[in-house]
Amino acid sequence: MYAFSRAVNSMHSEDIKLLMKQSSGEGLISFAGGMPNNDLFPVAEIDEIYNNLDDDIKKLCFQYGPTTGYPPLVRSLQNLMLRKGLPAKSDKILVTTGSLQAISIITQEFVNEGDIILAENPCFVGAISVFETYGAKIIGIPIDKEGIDIEALEKVIASLKSPPKFLYITPNFHNPAGILYTEQRRRALLKVLSGTDIILIEDDAYGDLFFDSKDQPLTKPLKSYKGYDVDIIYTGSFSKILGPGFRLGYMLSSPEIFEKAESIKQALDACTSNFMQILATEFIERGYLRPYLDFLRIEYRERKDILQRSLKKHMPKGIKWVEPQGGFYMWLSLPDQVMATALFKDCLKQGLVFVTGRTFDPENVNDDHLRLSFSNMPKEDIEKGVILLSQVIRGHLKEFETLEPSKQNQ
Amino acid sequence: MYAFSRAVNSMHSEDIKLLMKQSSGEGLISFAGGMPNNDLFPVAEIDEIYNNLDDDIKKLCFQYGPTTGYPPLVRSLQNLMLRKGLPAKSDKILVTTGSLQAISIITQEFVNEGDIILAENPCFVGAISVFETYGAKIIGIPIDKEGIDIEALEKVIASLKSPPKFLYITPNFHNPAGILYTEQRRRALLKVLSGTDIILIEDDAYGDLFFDSKDQPLTKPLKSYKGYDVDIIYTGSFSKILGPGFRLGYMLSSPEIFEKAESIKQALDACTSNFMQILATEFIERGYLRPYLDFLRIEYRERKDILQRSLKKHMPKGIKWVEPQGGFYMWLSLPDQVMATALFKDCLKQGLVFVTGRTFDPENVNDDHLRLSFSNMPKEDIEKGVILLSQVIRGHLKEFETLEPSKQNQ
Repeated sequence: MYAFSRAVNSMHSEDIKLLMKQSSGEGLISFAGGMPNNDLFPVAEIDEIYNNLDDDIKKLCFQYGPTTGYPPLVRSLQNLMLRKGLPAKSDKILVTTGSLQAISIITQEFVNEGDIILAENPCFVGAISVFETYGAKIIGIPIDKEGIDIEALEKVIASLKSPPKFLYITPNFHNPAGILYTEQRRRALLKVLSGTDIILIEDDAYGDLFFDSKDQPLTKPLKSYKGYDVDIIYTGSFSKILGPGFRLGYMLSSPEIFEKAESIKQALDACTSNFMQILATEFIERGYLRPYLDFLRIEYRERKDILQRSLKKHMPKGIKWVEPQGGFYMWLSLPDQVMATALFKDCLKQGLVFVTGRTFDPENVNDDHLRLSFSNMPKEDIEKGVILLSQVIRGHLKEFETLEPSKQNQ
Repeated sequence: MYAFSRAVNSMHSEDIKLLMKQSSGEGLISFAGGMPNNDLFPVAEIDEIYNNLDDDIKKLCFQYGPTTGYPPLVRSLQNLMLRKGLPAKSDKILVTTGSLQAISIITQEFVNEGDIILAENPCFVGAISVFETYGAKIIGIPIDKEGIDIEALEKVIASLKSPPKFLYITPNFHNPAGILYTEQRRRALLKVLSGTDIILIEDDAYGDLFFDSKDQPLTKPLKSYKGYDVDIIYTGSFSKILGPGFRLGYMLSSPEIFEKAESIKQALDACTSNFMQILATEFIERGYLRPYLDFLRIEYRERKDILQRSLKKHMPKGIKWVEPQGGFYMWLSLPDQVMATALFKDCLKQGLVFVTGRTFDPENVNDDHLRLSFSNMPKEDIEKGVILLSQVIRGHLKEFETLEPSKQNQ
């Protein structure tokens, strides 16, 4: 028996392991994996970049870099952020080994065992797993199609004896719910948090993946809004726009938060790979980012369109969803009598997988949703998958209808 | 004022920041940086590997991989470890983002605030900084040229009311002391730890960098020794044999330790870069590792030889060191009346830097040593640097000699 520390074996960590396995099973139709499709990566661009690096720069790829990030990448990120209206001059940028590391650093920076974190329900499971590992108590706040439920949030805040350390949200093309916060809801949220000392963690992993350029203004980060007294840590990622294999993310925060974050990062992995940072820097500086994002938007939109059409065509009545304006995910709401976990078991037998909503519930309870990820889907499989899913759902609905009325009300 | 967590701003973390800055100052003669020389990286081999990857494998570079590591890399590591006599079949390998992440994971896995960790004094400053960040109490055990001081270790263990969580050592070409544990000392250490429940962390970042192949058997890991009842976690790194920019390390541990380590890693960065793992796998599988290590051994040995000759030629009496049989470091012991930190200030004015011994003291006190790293030194600068250093040392010795006798005895 080992005398392990109190670092928790996160309940959701098992879900993630399962999820990773299911996303890559041979011969499966998988709506499970929230990752880009292998065929969409900018391989040709990275080839060209790699083979045209100056010798001195290429040698730098192999070397240690500063803990805070490869300076040219920090400058490139600063420019990108300034264009989004973010305060990237007064605040400081820390490059991280994926944006999950940023969430991990922030959690270590603020959370002692037993501290309270507010999160959306549903919430990105990777973040839940980090919060659990460090022994935080997570309180989920419901969201609707316009964003976090302000009234519920106010009630929770008022009910707490000790203030929560932070609120973690994903306002742009939420994972798993697919929603985009409205401007009104963003402002309402900032108003609620103003002056409360509750830090807002704004995870913007998907903000660049709007399907329609007219929606771009709606993705404007909360951290760029003026006139509110809220401390916001903004996090972003290259995983969705270059590839998760790069393990590159970043956070923008006040200098004080940045400084302690740097020390924590130093004790986590000393620095992020210079190799990956240099390729990413060149990708931005050679002007490849914008056309590549345009390409991705078209590709993901096509997949979303096929999925939307297929769902409308095949789903039985009672199944609801919000058509997403960007990102990777469609969030299906099931009628009361259908359990997502039961659906999952039957779908798996037919070679179809998705992620049950419970995975994204901090309490691991709600069983009335499922997440369909279309980002990693071959276009030709989408309708096939939806037909299979709808058949299984119909089976579950039918089973319920044939139950005696007394049972229905249980 | 932020309500930060109790994660500590490590005292040694400032030292590391300074060290990183000093290692790379323009126009300096730097014995400071414990990193490989930019001109020694296997750039041509990695070029060839990158440009000959199968399309499917290249796409995998961009994608998420399993938290435990890219399976072909795990298999390659397993073969390398088995050849070193390590139990890589019964125990499990976790790929990490640099071996510092392995140390960080192990610390999170076992250490609660206030727990005791035993370490060598001097000790790798990166590890000290990790232990401090998680609030551990570090007890340093002295080392001599044959390894850790067994008697001192026994005394400390006997004196402790609660058992320490682990002992962290670097038996092969120690950083900063440069020593190689003798077989006798290895066995004595294993005997002391047998049956105590104190886990041994064996950091083997430098084991492959012996200067003379007859010394290779002496680098045999403690974890490969049979007949002792000691739980050993073995860590290794690609930083010294491929490049720190890859951020690739690994740990070998019992399945139970591995399992919890996997969960912790998942909450740190989800997985290590597939891109870097795939290049490293090919580097091993195409047979580049062995000839590259042979090349490095010759290069580093040459640097060590020049440094050794220069020190013998120029150092005043009273300065002592052990000629290293491998690795990156020479550890100079100063006479009582010379303070390393005072030397450092005067050397810096002359454009010469090294690391003061205090940096590697868990208590941050001992001021009687300095570390000269020859790994990153252009050969032609070594003697120049030693002449400068010896002049400054002579100055400090002289200053002392001219003091009144009464002052000398203070």
